[in-house]
Amino acid sequence: MDKLNVVKVGGTIINDKILLGQFLSAFSSISGKKILVHGGGKKATEISSALDIDTRMIDGRRITDASNLEVVVMVYAGLINKSIVARLQANGLQSLGISGADWAIIKSHKRKVFKIDYGLVGDIDYVDDHKLQKLIALGITPVICPITYEASGQLLNTNADTIAAKIAMAMHQHYDVTLKYCFEYPGVIKDINHDKTTIPRLSSTLYSKLKSDGKIHSGMLPKIDNAFSVLNTGVERVAICGIDNLISEKELTWIG
Amino acid sequence: MDKLNVVKVGGTIINDKILLGQFLSAFSSISGKKILVHGGGKKATEISSALDIDTRMIDGRRITDASNLEVVVMVYAGLINKSIVARLQANGLQSLGISGADWAIIKSHKRKVFKIDYGLVGDIDYVDDHKLQKLIALGITPVICPITYEASGQLLNTNADTIAAKIAMAMHQHYDVTLKYCFEYPGVIKDINHDKTTIPRLSSTLYSKLKSDGKIHSGMLPKIDNAFSVLNTGVERVAICGIDNLISEKELTWIG
Repeated sequence: MDKLNVVKVGGTIINDKILLGQFLSAFSSISGKKILVHGGGKKATEISSALDIDTRMIDGRRITDASNLEVVVMVYAGLINKSIVARLQANGLQSLGISGADWAIIKSHKRKVFKIDYGLVGDIDYVDDHKLQKLIALGITPVICPITYEASGQLLNTNADTIAAKIAMAMHQHYDVTLKYCFEYPGVIKDINHDKTTIPRLSSTLYSKLKSDGKIHSGMLPKIDNAFSVLNTGVERVAICGIDNLISEKELTWIG
Repeated sequence: MDKLNVVKVGGTIINDKILLGQFLSAFSSISGKKILVHGGGKKATEISSALDIDTRMIDGRRITDASNLEVVVMVYAGLINKSIVARLQANGLQSLGISGADWAIIKSHKRKVFKIDYGLVGDIDYVDDHKLQKLIALGITPVICPITYEASGQLLNTNADTIAAKIAMAMHQHYDVTLKYCFEYPGVIKDINHDKTTIPRLSSTLYSKLKSDGKIHSGMLPKIDNAFSVLNTGVERVAICGIDNLISEKELTWIG
């Protein structure tokens, strides 16, 4: 079974031109088949603010109305996705940038309203593993932005960490999949205030303990939760890493 | 030889949600293999203006600086391209939205500076007909935005009429190609002030005469020039049409 690396790169790296260049060099050097999923970053907030579009937050969650959606589609599917693709081409990597709407690869539905209406936010129903496999068979590295769509033709803002997890799960029947969440630290840090070495393996027991001790930064929780969601689905290699250890796998954190 | 329709849709249709919906319905109904190339529209100008980005013009030609380029990449490759793709999926058409950078399908170079530096504008070197053919063989309808790139990884703003012409020329060795420029009129109008019927066939002799008589609107000239550029390259069917006669081919204008 061929190996496939599914790599998610986060907003802090995308926001920094130099870090992004370093990440894309490292990503280009991963041998074999691979898929890149990228997040958003602060550009969408900057553009929204310049266009006088409010970003409403409820309980710390962003609400995506029609104006916000236009901005994230512009920034994620347009500016960030195409800038990454063009830089990967310059690195000699045959990349193709897509949203979930392209070739109907990721279908979702607007998040159901219980207490809160998050607006035009997608929860994923389906990743078309056969189509992704066909693109990969052509020698293409898919570069996927966090925009999906529902059957009505409505585009939807979608969490990139979740997209990466769902893609890894969908692809494991065709490949030996490794999923890596790449961000600004080399892995999950033991104690951000006292011991900045990384945890080599984060079991669910240890994760529960670190959470209850308040030693894991709250921004890390969705990423780690998404990483855990993939385990026991056939994908056995899930890691949280930085740019420098993306390939070497030194001192990153394996999940599970 | 299979038939292939290459259709370019212009800004005035893209600017109008209802017209765009009508166009996309008509386009979805074209039987067989097809490629859509879309232009820009006024949204990029609106966004630039809202972001306080100047649009410099020299001799009536737009100059694309780094800030303008960010906006056109956002709007053309992001908002317009993905909105079109999602609506085509809703019509049941398996479309995939790409820029020239994606899978390195359209390579260009920054326009050479003679009298005027147009900035980050691309002149096309190469359309990869084999890759487009591979996408089409997968049952995909490519939807192409007017952004290309050069080997350095720089994205470039590129004329959509020219992209459509170059694609038609590149694809004619694989398919029986028809190229249609679809805009807000049913074809080339005989005399916009006195006789609004369309010219059934515009020969180069007639075109020269109408130009010297001032009967063709100046905005039409680049479109018609691009249409003529394709003739005698193997593509024999080139037309200028509207939405209603895109499929019926009634009262459109054949070029050449």
